[in-house]
Amino acid sequence: MPRLHLLLAGLLMLATSPGTLAEQTFSDAPETMAGAPTLSQLSVDGNRFINADGDTVVLRGLSLSDPWHLERQGHWNRAYFEAARAWNAELVRIPVHPGWWREAGHEQYLQWLDQGVQWAGELGMYVIIDWHTIGNPLTGVPHRPNYLTTQEETYYFWHLVANRYRGNPVVAFYELFNEPTNRGGEMGRLPWPEYKAYIEGLVDMIFHIDDTAIPLVAGFDWAYSLEHVRDDPIDFDGIAYVSHPYPQKREPPWQNQWEADWGYVADTYPVIVTEFGYMAEGDRGAHIPVLGDDTYGKAITDYMADKGISWTAWVFDPRWTPNLFTDWDYTPTMQGEFFKKVLAQ
Amino acid sequence: MPRLHLLLAGLLMLATSPGTLAEQTFSDAPETMAGAPTLSQLSVDGNRFINADGDTVVLRGLSLSDPWHLERQGHWNRAYFEAARAWNAELVRIPVHPGWWREAGHEQYLQWLDQGVQWAGELGMYVIIDWHTIGNPLTGVPHRPNYLTTQEETYYFWHLVANRYRGNPVVAFYELFNEPTNRGGEMGRLPWPEYKAYIEGLVDMIFHIDDTAIPLVAGFDWAYSLEHVRDDPIDFDGIAYVSHPYPQKREPPWQNQWEADWGYVADTYPVIVTEFGYMAEGDRGAHIPVLGDDTYGKAITDYMADKGISWTAWVFDPRWTPNLFTDWDYTPTMQGEFFKKVLAQ
Amino acid sequence: MPRLHLLLAGLLMLATSPGTLAEQTFSDAPETMAGAPTLSQLSVDGNRFINADGDTVVLRGLSLSDPWHLERQGHWNRAYFEAARAWNAELVRIPVHPGWWREAGHEQYLQWLDQGVQWAGELGMYVIIDWHTIGNPLTGVPHRPNYLTTQEETYYFWHLVANRYRGNPVVAFYELFNEPTNRGGEMGRLPWPEYKAYIEGLVDMIFHIDDTAIPLVAGFDWAYSLEHVRDDPIDFDGIAYVSHPYPQKREPPWQNQWEADWGYVADTYPVIVTEFGYMAEGDRGAHIPVLGDDTYGKAITDYMADKGISWTAWVFDPRWTPNLFTDWDYTPTMQGEFFKKVLAQ
Ligand SMILES: [Mg+2]
Ligand SMILES: [Mg+2]
Ligand SMILES: [Mg+2]
Ligand SMILES: [Mg+2]
Ligand SMILES: [Mg+2]
Repeated sequence: MPRLHLLLAGLLMLATSPGTLAEQTFSDAPETMAGAPTLSQLSVDGNRFINADGDTVVLRGLSLSDPWHLERQGHWNRAYFEAARAWNAELVRIPVHPGWWREAGHEQYLQWLDQGVQWAGELGMYVIIDWHTIGNPLTGVPHRPNYLTTQEETYYFWHLVANRYRGNPVVAFYELFNEPTNRGGEMGRLPWPEYKAYIEGLVDMIFHIDDTAIPLVAGFDWAYSLEHVRDDPIDFDGIAYVSHPYPQKREPPWQNQWEADWGYVADTYPVIVTEFGYMAEGDRGAHIPVLGDDTYGKAITDYMADKGISWTAWVFDPRWTPNLFTDWDYTPTMQGEFFKKVLAQ
Repeated sequence: MPRLHLLLAGLLMLATSPGTLAEQTFSDAPETMAGAPTLSQLSVDGNRFINADGDTVVLRGLSLSDPWHLERQGHWNRAYFEAARAWNAELVRIPVHPGWWREAGHEQYLQWLDQGVQWAGELGMYVIIDWHTIGNPLTGVPHRPNYLTTQEETYYFWHLVANRYRGNPVVAFYELFNEPTNRGGEMGRLPWPEYKAYIEGLVDMIFHIDDTAIPLVAGFDWAYSLEHVRDDPIDFDGIAYVSHPYPQKREPPWQNQWEADWGYVADTYPVIVTEFGYMAEGDRGAHIPVLGDDTYGKAITDYMADKGISWTAWVFDPRWTPNLFTDWDYTPTMQGEFFKKVLAQ
Repeated sequence: MPRLHLLLAGLLMLATSPGTLAEQTFSDAPETMAGAPTLSQLSVDGNRFINADGDTVVLRGLSLSDPWHLERQGHWNRAYFEAARAWNAELVRIPVHPGWWREAGHEQYLQWLDQGVQWAGELGMYVIIDWHTIGNPLTGVPHRPNYLTTQEETYYFWHLVANRYRGNPVVAFYELFNEPTNRGGEMGRLPWPEYKAYIEGLVDMIFHIDDTAIPLVAGFDWAYSLEHVRDDPIDFDGIAYVSHPYPQKREPPWQNQWEADWGYVADTYPVIVTEFGYMAEGDRGAHIPVLGDDTYGKAITDYMADKGISWTAWVFDPRWTPNLFTDWDYTPTMQGEFFKKVLAQ
């Protein structure tokens, strides 16, 4: 089928403003975003991310909240991205909740994502797009209704997103499935080989659309554990693995357990920690496994620095928890103060 | 993930009124009903149901109609359950239609179920929750639109229900899929090994949530035949099998055919007949395979008594057929008179 | 389950007007259309379609547009079918878009189809019912949102349609899945053996309902290529294969490529070209792969005549492209003039 539109879209990229899409004919693939500013294209080299010059890149930044959630609060705007940049984020993660994706419709959602990608790119920040579901991808049981999706919907989401940001260096990462878990069996069976086959199907599709994208693959236990990677890694080069090592996933001292559970993977493949954070027990919205303090903050950031692991701290929102700020003056919380300082170093 | 809420829910059970749910934090499993009265916990021992004292229990009762169907008629209330108890039901079966589950929403539906469980428990009746779908679970073809569901939705239904009634002795049984049929091929292929694998996935999930529940497994031909159990039973202990031996499934004399088709299973596993009933040809809503008379009624109840098979007669509703009563004074039909007498013995 | 209704429906067919359905009881299969006029029943014999007298039949006609699309324009009516007949169509193809099937609801849609079948039959034209989806049937990725469906929905569609037109000779063909494609990998993996297994499941279901129907099976590359049939044909007799050889699928000269890509199948199985057409580059809605002129028109119709291949030209609608007419006076376009002449021969 015709690929002329790709060339066209490429030319337009240099000239047009955000939101201008190349004209479509019937047979064309889904639209590609035009006009995004260019950052150096990232790729995977061994266990590192490198830029177009071959330099090793370790990115640190912030996990944002969902565009629709922010839109309804009146804060899906450039100021929000400027605040993230003011905290020295080099990377921002944009979560898309399946339930909201359906409610708002994918055309609206992709326009919000275009805006975020545009703002991030102008401010010099890379973007992770995150399919923010939690549950068992094989049985379809979600942790909560807003996380409910199907394999078919997930394929279609990534088909649209990968076409939208084909060859766009700002959108460096696609986090395929936020937190796979079967809750110890309570969401049905979740054998790694079947999960792996599903993930490989998604990666295969994405690479056919855009082999400059870097898919991010989570392990089980709510994206904490990468134990299965040791013996049975994803059968594609060019991907990276994800962990969400919240403080109470393990009892301190953590380092040896992190190394055994997921950190060891960073010796062979790139690893990126796309969620972690902490808050005090009495705080609003506090819950297991996020209770912790700066001791944890220091331990995990030191551990990741040692290992060359990129990260985004959860969450740059005043309502979701553990929150990084408390109000729309971006007043930092306990962890907010800590991460702001680390990012400034 | 945190299980503290379970302990909490357990404690609340002793103290709170129905409908009061333990407070949830983000990582918690779906809510567990609080405050249900306690009957003796049933379990499977060989081919029998036993109570907490180890006594063999054979339960006889009534198949109710759907909570939403009754709610719209103004009869989803304690009086309806009291009427079932007045007919001497020891067991009631509550069917949930997938189409109505979606329309009313699961939060509303679970509240109705909580009410039913509460009323049944207070009146000393056990409960079967029945996912009231008819069709081919592999291709998804339903007998009628209201029976349409998917494997994903079925997993999520049982995930929510099994969490809701974790460890609750009143809710003794989960009838996983009311009537599997492929209509002789007209709904697509339905090989037993694939059906069995699906059912085992559901049982595995439920037992991880609550190993005190007793899943009920139907065979093919609209839950009539258990022919496949002989050579290839479900690979779990602690379950029971279901048949729906309506009169015209076979020509009289029935007994030897029932024995060969499904009754033989009762020699090895518990069997429960969750639907059966009859009406005269000229009656409103009469249809194959439910045409019959008291000859059938006596034959089937005698057969089940001989075999120690538990049962619920279809249906304790004045509209659905074959109906057990004709109006909201609970005036019995032909079969209503018959079953009322048998239940009183 | 009871089949008495079938006999009843058969009797009614002789006597009733269109739209009159036999009364249903609970256990009955979905309704069968009553009253359709009778054409000679077609069937497959080797690589030919034959009628009830055993005569070889090669059908030529028009691909209509979707009932709902026409209904909204006020043109889903007998006059539209009369116009097709005035162009000498012997066969019309009715596409059903999954998105519209869901929106209008299947009861409404089946009534529209009943009307079309009635009008076509009265006018002496056979009907293809076409599940008008485009995309990867395994991952569920659609080419556009209106093509989105699932395997479950596709099974249910064919279950309802095959019951509706059981034994109805006017509805000769069921085109199972309009255009399977994975866009060269960009819609995910699409191995032929898995597609074949899915299609065989649909054929198996349809033949259990109505073994007088002729299922039509498309190959990959948007229903262009039948390359996989050579070594691994569908494991059922009584089916036919489909190709959509639009002009730019290959560079001229076309004939040898058509022969190698899909036409060779016509030596062994019946082949029917259910979509093809062309328009000039500057025309409204022109796009790859439909650009062409009468050279193509002559080449493809000559090739099909040589091979005894039946066909319907795309599309008997003034808006969709390549269109056969420009206004509701049925003024022919370039290709419209050409096909009208060929059909008149
Ligand atoms: Mg599915
Ligand atoms: Mg990119
Ligand atoms: Mg599905
Ligand atoms: Mg229980
Ligand atoms: Mg037919």
